[in-house]
Parts: sequence; C-alpha cells; structure tokens
Amino acid sequence: MAVYTEVSDEDLTRFLQRYALGALVSYKGIAEGVENSNYLLKTETGQYILTLYEKRVHREDLPFFLGLMEHLASRGLPCPTPVHDLAGETLQELGGRPAAIVSFLNGYSVRRPRVEHCAPVGKALADLHLAGAGFALRRENALSLTGWRQLVRATASNADQAADGLAEEIAREFRFLENAWPGDLPAGVIHADLFPDNVFFRAEAMSGLIDFYFACNDLFAYDVAICLNAWCFEEPNAINVTKARALLRGYNASRALSEKETLALPILARGAALRFLLTRLYDWFNTSENALVKPKDPLEYRRKLRFHQSVRSPSDYGL
Amino acid sequence: MAVYTEVSDEDLTRFLQRYALGALVSYKGIAEGVENSNYLLKTETGQYILTLYEKRVHREDLPFFLGLMEHLASRGLPCPTPVHDLAGETLQELGGRPAAIVSFLNGYSVRRPRVEHCAPVGKALADLHLAGAGFALRRENALSLTGWRQLVRATASNADQAADGLAEEIAREFRFLENAWPGDLPAGVIHADLFPDNVFFRAEAMSGLIDFYFACNDLFAYDVAICLNAWCFEEPNAINVTKARALLRGYNASRALSEKETLALPILARGAALRFLLTRLYDWFNTSENALVKPKDPLEYRRKLRFHQSVRSPSDYGL
Repeated sequence: MAVYTEVSDEDLTRFLQRYALGALVSYKGIAEGVENSNYLLKTETGQYILTLYEKRVHREDLPFFLGLMEHLASRGLPCPTPVHDLAGETLQELGGRPAAIVSFLNGYSVRRPRVEHCAPVGKALADLHLAGAGFALRRENALSLTGWRQLVRATASNADQAADGLAEEIAREFRFLENAWPGDLPAGVIHADLFPDNVFFRAEAMSGLIDFYFACNDLFAYDVAICLNAWCFEEPNAINVTKARALLRGYNASRALSEKETLALPILARGAALRFLLTRLYDWFNTSENALVKPKDPLEYRRKLRFHQSVRSPSDYGL
Repeated sequence: MAVYTEVSDEDLTRFLQRYALGALVSYKGIAEGVENSNYLLKTETGQYILTLYEKRVHREDLPFFLGLMEHLASRGLPCPTPVHDLAGETLQELGGRPAAIVSFLNGYSVRRPRVEHCAPVGKALADLHLAGAGFALRRENALSLTGWRQLVRATASNADQAADGLAEEIAREFRFLENAWPGDLPAGVIHADLFPDNVFFRAEAMSGLIDFYFACNDLFAYDVAICLNAWCFEEPNAINVTKARALLRGYNASRALSEKETLALPILARGAALRFLLTRLYDWFNTSENALVKPKDPLEYRRKLRFHQSVRSPSDYGL
C-alpha cells in the first residue's frame, strides 16, 4: 500500500491537457495495489484512477492489459476502462513511468470474505472468462510451469530458512505437477490473481474487478483453483466447503465447468498453491527491509498445498 | 505519505451507522498528511475524509482542533468541517484510534509555489486569523519558547552529527530569542503549519486550508513569519522578495499588519526557522529506519535561520 512515484500538480495539469476530461479538481495518492502507484483523480468530468506502472510490470505487456480491460468493459464486465486521450491513445508516460488513466469503480474490497461473497465472485470470474472471448492479443502465463521452474531454482537455497525441508517439498511438488499438469482443458483469458483485494462489493453485491496485471491466456479451471485458494480457506489449513460450493455454484451459473475440468481441480489447486508459495517465498527473501510493502507469509500457501495434496477427489471440496 | 491504521470494510460499515451519511460506496487509504491515517470516503451523500489520529496528535487536543475547524468553516473559511453523528458528536473512536469524519475539499497542493500562489495564501492566513475571533477554546503553542527549550536539550547531543557546530549555533540562537521574543503583539488562533502541503488550489485560486493539528493561540505575525519561511524562499538560502511582497500584500488586504508587527518580523522569522530546525532535527535522529515517512532535511531551516540573522530590517524582505 504505497505511492512510489510522486506526481506534481504541474506535471499532472500538463498531462491532463492530452485528454478531454476537463480541468483538474483534486488528486490524492491512494494505497491501492502493491505493484504500482495509483492516484484518485477528480476532474470537471468525474472521477478516475491514474496508474503509474512501476518496475514489476513490463512495459511490453501493457497493450495486452489495457486492451483487455477495454475489451472486457465493452462487453459489460464491471472493470476499469482505459480512457483515450485526444489522439486515441491509452498508454502514456508520466514521471518517467508508463502511465494510464482508467475509469473509477464504486465499491470496496472485503477484508474477511464471507459465504455471501463467494457466489458473486464465482459468477464474476465466469463472466470474465466468457467476456474474454474474441480478444485479439495473447499473453502467455509467465507464472505457469516454466516460470515455476525458474522460481524453484531461485528459491532453493533460501527455502529451508522459511521452514525445514521446504526446498525439497517444493522440488518434489514441482516434479509431480510437471508430469500431472493437464493440457487439454478449455482455455482463454484468465485474471490469474482474483484475490479479495481485487474484487469490489457494495454491501454483498459485486461491483467491480480490478488489477488485471497478471492476466494472461491459460486454463479457465486454473483461475477457478486460484479463487478457491484465495476465497474459500479457513486458517490453519482447511477449505470451507460451504464457501467452495458457493463459489462453484456462482461460476457454473454463467459458465458450467465440464466434468473433466472439475476432476482436474485438485491438481490445478496444487499448482495454484505452489505458484503463490513460490512467488511469496521469492519476495520474502528479495524484498528490501526498507520496502513500503511487507511481503506476505509464504507458509500460508504451503498449508493450502498440503491440504490439496491430501484431497482424494473434488468431493473433498464439497462438490 | 502513508496509512498507518487499516480500517476494514466491516468496521467502517458499522462506524457509518452512527451517521446520516448513507451507505458506503467506496473508500481508499490516501497518502495525505504525515501524522495521521486518512481515508477518502464516498457514501451515498458525497465525499468525505476519515482521519484516524495517530500517536503524535494528543487526544486531549482534539476538541480544540475539531471545534476550531467547525468554528472557522462556519465563518466562511474554506477548511474541512467535522461531520456530526446522529448523537451530535464529531470525535469518535475507530480501529483503536481517535477518529473523525470531515468534509472533503476540492483542490490540490502545489509542489513548487509560484508568486501567483503567495498573495492568495497571505489573504487566507489573514482570513483565518480574523475568523478565529470568538472561538471559545484555547490551546497554548507547545512549540514556542518552552517547547524549543526542551528540543534544544533533546537535540544537543546529536546536533553536531547533522552539521559541525550546530548544537552551539542552536543554543546561541535560543538564548537570543528568549530575550528578544516580543510579547505584546496581536494574538489569537494561528494555523502554525501553513506549508504548501496544507493549502489547496484550483488553477491559481486558493480553494482550501487543511491540517489544523498544530493550530494554537499565539502571535498572528508569528504565523506570517512561518509562511514567509515556507512559501517565499529560494534554495540555497535567500528570500524571494517578490513572493514575500505578494504574501504580505495578500495578508494586509484582509488584516493589515501594524508597524510594530512588521518590525518584529525578522525576529519572528528567526523563531519560526528555529522551530522547524529543531523539530526536523529531532525527527532526523528519532525516526525509525522502517518509518513510512522519510524525515525532512533540518539544514534547510538552518539556512533560513542564517538568512534572517543577516537581515537588518523588514525592508530586506522587500517590505
């Protein structure tokens, strides 16, 4: 939760002259997202979000991300829509960073998701998968098997500092997933990071999806598995079957998972757990002490991984 | 620029039930102010700022600060107005902190003030001084001579680490000011921290004054001196007389400084420079390395102090 790049009133006033948004009324740096600098803008025409992309987002991926948001929003998904400047462009530069203005969405993320939130999230995820059809650009998932392999290597020497035997546990799981990973399931554009931080609600109604900066082309059911891990677990390590059922019911209401997809969920959920275990572990040992964002606990995802390893069939998720 | 205390959607939703502001629409932690946690709230009735007072603000001072904002706003000064809950209260508790909701002000602070900004700031300061008349509460200035004496002692052992001979320079200046400080000038409620961060503009029109958490009863002309230091200097160490003239012209347009006040400005400006030199020096050596806010350069205020020491009369400010 931080603003990394400060934008002066002079620079912003000059920047806004590219747009037909009217004069600047106010702007505030906001603590939203962990990767980028975000400002809540108010101009004579309304409220917007200005994002400056910090180094973790690759500039060459931005046309995919911005194009995708525009594609999804045009198909009725409640997500931020990039605003075009007078020349028709959405991707800009400000403060030495790639930058874009997107529409403002009402709503707020829920700190502790309850069962009532899970069905709307499932439905929104399925709606996103359907709305992604026809989007012209492609982006490989940098955090699937190939990326995991690199992270297994990059974390091997430190992992045991986080927990005894963790390096070997990760290596073993990666070898298993490398062999078991399904290749023939329905695929398309996925969000790949639909955590509670990234879903807005008003009361219990879903009002928006944000943060498309991990979106990519991959298996739809893998996105479902990421959501199961993110929304349906109770500490210390067990799935809440009522939440899982609600999430799947919501998903199926818009796009029915095939039997093959459902059967693959335990493997996909292991992969989803390994993915966040690996990236959190990497961040744990590679975040400077002075960083503005505290790294998240990697071991939360080891507990989830172990739960999925113990699962016999999707019925253990309540399905 | 940070949010120290996080507020969950559940806690905020429950908190808002005390008020007649309608349901929560959105809220974002904002990077505004260095002392407190601030959220930009949107409810069904409009936009507001929610402030959680962190430890540097003393709870017993809050009735003065909140009462003052209400008093000033009711007299037409564009400053945040505390919102009353259904029981008529403005001071609350949230997340274990004293908290208040105040009205939202349009506008934004200017990074690099220009001459055009100085007259409106001077006028706003005079308007504040006039509007404070009749406010029933009093608050001594904790950062006048008595407070400086404590800070001179608290910084004495470290000051020379910031610059050779600084401890002795500070001690000498304090002894001088203790004897020379004027006691018989017009006094009332002053802002005491009207830096560019705390004044909002739209284009070049002043649209609001914020951050009243150093406000107190003290000499009006001392507040003018604080503004001269904050708005009218050019690095490395000289006053910009065009800006100083503009600021004073703006001030005099609403409340004319007496000749006695004008003649006291060089002494008052030395005191104002010492005050910020001392607090910045203290923060420099007493801010943890992990703090979310970087301490400000104390030596900027030694340069300003030395400039004022060299001044022969107010005409050196262009007056």
